[in-house]
Amino acid sequence: MNFLEERILKDGIVKPNNVLKVDSFLNHQMDISLMEEIGREFHRRFGDKNITKVLTIEASGIGIACFVAREFGVPMVFAKKSHSINIDSEVYTAEVESFTHKNKNNIIVSRKFLNQDDHILIIDDFLANGCALQGLIAISKAAGASVEGIGIVIEKGFQIGGQVIRNLGIQLESLAIIDAMDSDTGSITFREQ
Amino acid sequence: MNFLEERILKDGIVKPNNVLKVDSFLNHQMDISLMEEIGREFHRRFGDKNITKVLTIEASGIGIACFVAREFGVPMVFAKKSHSINIDSEVYTAEVESFTHKNKNNIIVSRKFLNQDDHILIIDDFLANGCALQGLIAISKAAGASVEGIGIVIEKGFQIGGQVIRNLGIQLESLAIIDAMDSDTGSITFREQ
Repeated sequence: MNFLEERILKDGIVKPNNVLKVDSFLNHQMDISLMEEIGREFHRRFGDKNITKVLTIEASGIGIACFVAREFGVPMVFAKKSHSINIDSEVYTAEVESFTHKNKNNIIVSRKFLNQDDHILIIDDFLANGCALQGLIAISKAAGASVEGIGIVIEKGFQIGGQVIRNLGIQLESLAIIDAMDSDTGSITFREQ
Repeated sequence: MNFLEERILKDGIVKPNNVLKVDSFLNHQMDISLMEEIGREFHRRFGDKNITKVLTIEASGIGIACFVAREFGVPMVFAKKSHSINIDSEVYTAEVESFTHKNKNNIIVSRKFLNQDDHILIIDDFLANGCALQGLIAISKAAGASVEGIGIVIEKGFQIGGQVIRNLGIQLESLAIIDAMDSDTGSITFREQ
């Protein structure tokens, strides 16, 4: 069991409808030491790639992606969820459906910050149905950039996203893959990796 | 002129209607080395306070607040802008109007993550009318916590927010205060500090 699986067992809370609350350390209150450890672990797994940019999506991916980008010594770019007056009209865009919020958003990245010379590492906190990742992949491809890999903190292995992404032939590394959760007993079953 | 003012002059773009675009290094693409320098600078300014938590608001405050929290060795909590099914009903809430997005949001923080023993440093990227900060202050007070200070990266000195917050008697430190901008010439006038 790795450091993240241990932390999920210690502080994660299993709720009905396959909701895992990790808001005490990952996506509401953030344990910065854990973020740094996650950054180092993704660097260990993707350090052989010539990464030029880390790409994520607001909001809960940002903190994690910052510490990954720090390890690689590259900028971090986060996709935004709606059209702000502070964003150029010159943007790449993709439509993304949120499992958590049960709605659809357009996500956008300014064309200035991704181009054909970029080798991108995509980072996010959760992978469920994979819609957010597919949006980020679509934006990377629209920029002519190459997606060198995807790093996920927690993958819900019982949902379709991981399989969809792996079928694309992209190196997907999830620090914890949950195959089953039971809100009655609080038990969590991790996939052996 | 400090490191941030220099960077704003180098890479900031003045747009009409007093919009300053710093999306190439601060709030869309993030320069991680700059984030670390900002973290160190706020620690220098607030290091004499017994800070227990750094509080910010999604999305663009998160990256900055992470590196501030790292310097203090404390957790970072970010207020969320809408009610997610992954948030407890047990939340502190405040209404916030966004200058950028021209809408109102409820911001929420789980009661689990702020309490009367907390000494809070509030961090955000921009200060304009101060509504977001007032929401974060209201949430901190509702938790019984003390707000030890507020660190802002860029304050629009020609808007009311800075004065409103300073009138509350809270130590407000802005790394750059802009007193005037001209989108025709691209000129930016910083306040002497």
